[in-house]
Amino acid sequence: MTEPVDPAAIVAVTSLQVLADGSALERREEVAVEAPFAIQLEGETLAITMRTPGHDAELTAGFLLAEGHDPRGAARARVVKRGTLSSAACGVCGRDDIEDLIERLGPVEADTHFERSVLANAMQHLPEHQPSFARTGGLHAAALVSTEGQFLIAREDVGRHNAVDKVLGRAALDGLLPLSRHFLVVSGRTSFEIVQKAVAAGVPALVAISAPSSLAIELAERFSVLLIGFARGGGFTVYAGRFRLEGARE
Amino acid sequence: MTEPVDPAAIVAVTSLQVLADGSALERREEVAVEAPFAIQLEGETLAITMRTPGHDAELTAGFLLAEGHDPRGAARARVVKRGTLSSAACGVCGRDDIEDLIERLGPVEADTHFERSVLANAMQHLPEHQPSFARTGGLHAAALVSTEGQFLIAREDVGRHNAVDKVLGRAALDGLLPLSRHFLVVSGRTSFEIVQKAVAAGVPALVAISAPSSLAIELAERFSVLLIGFARGGGFTVYAGRFRLEGARE
Repeated sequence: MTEPVDPAAIVAVTSLQVLADGSALERREEVAVEAPFAIQLEGETLAITMRTPGHDAELTAGFLLAEGHDPRGAARARVVKRGTLSSAACGVCGRDDIEDLIERLGPVEADTHFERSVLANAMQHLPEHQPSFARTGGLHAAALVSTEGQFLIAREDVGRHNAVDKVLGRAALDGLLPLSRHFLVVSGRTSFEIVQKAVAAGVPALVAISAPSSLAIELAERFSVLLIGFARGGGFTVYAGRFRLEGARE
Repeated sequence: MTEPVDPAAIVAVTSLQVLADGSALERREEVAVEAPFAIQLEGETLAITMRTPGHDAELTAGFLLAEGHDPRGAARARVVKRGTLSSAACGVCGRDDIEDLIERLGPVEADTHFERSVLANAMQHLPEHQPSFARTGGLHAAALVSTEGQFLIAREDVGRHNAVDKVLGRAALDGLLPLSRHFLVVSGRTSFEIVQKAVAAGVPALVAISAPSSLAIELAERFSVLLIGFARGGGFTVYAGRFRLEGARE
């Protein structure tokens, strides 16, 4: 009953694994595909979601069910698939098309570099800035850290994207944009949406404790964002923008 | 710079902690608040999100920034807060009002009970049904399990809600609804949306590896769903619907 892995659900990427001692090696590894998917019923777009390809008919049926529609009406649902970043659609913001969103994103300051030890240390200090997580176990966190390793703003929320919005929103209200001398540390995974928010604020680097999606990597590459995942125990993996990294020995 | 915990961000609930040996004790514990929040700009609703209360002006500014608006225009954003479940708004499905969604949800079969050991074992077997997670570390999983502990359907996706939609959609296409003799096992946390999907499919129990939100508990109580969190190492915590639980000694 557990079906074999859908070939479209996983993609191979080249990453740089940085160990705690500063040594680094390049490798091929697999990441989960994130791609926009639109569900339409009788010409009306009901939802656009960022999903992993595979079992799309089931996804449609389940969505219809939860929305109070006949799930077996799925066959009547006209499903619009958009596979490429340039014509991608945003799931969470409710817009049909993020193309103009991406086009409006400015370039990120190219000359900022980040020291390996500062990036690794920041993730190790994140729990000190998660007082609500310590009490509930139910919240994500995001923090803005300077190139020198100073924590400026940290926020928690049930939604990963909300925690990031709260951090970058504070910085915006304080007139700190663009955040070209800072990086963002986030609990959990990195999706397209998280990278998009970072770029909008001019943040040149993102450090996450868990895996990035395919689309997160694609967007980070496009805007030269240093994208780091699996930051644990002093080591981490670089998925994009490695020219910004200092202090690792390849 | 790390602000004290917002009192509105955490709420205390009474839960039942069930240990691996079947003994159980009631306790008070804290859960993260999940509540709908609407961001409006010049009369137009830009987004409705499920968020943790606190730093709402920052959330608004950060959202505006990511959407390509002037983030300092946040002061002009008219923020609509809706605090109660009965007038709650759905963040992910893009509907302004989920009241009619909840009203359309039927009651869940009341006579189904679940054996403690079956619930605990299911979570311990979930990794066997996560082949893509094993390769990428970047995917959530959901599975439908019978009261006897048999795995029927398991699916993975970058989105937790998508994995649940794929599982329940498959069951719907196969004519298996309502799923009154089954429970749902999910990786990660349980939010309002996950419980709502379970209820729509008639599923009377939900087992998660991590924490539930306040709104997930509230909805589970309303529809008598057995809601379990922190299912790890053979033990778990019951947040709602404990009348369905068998084999635990209080």
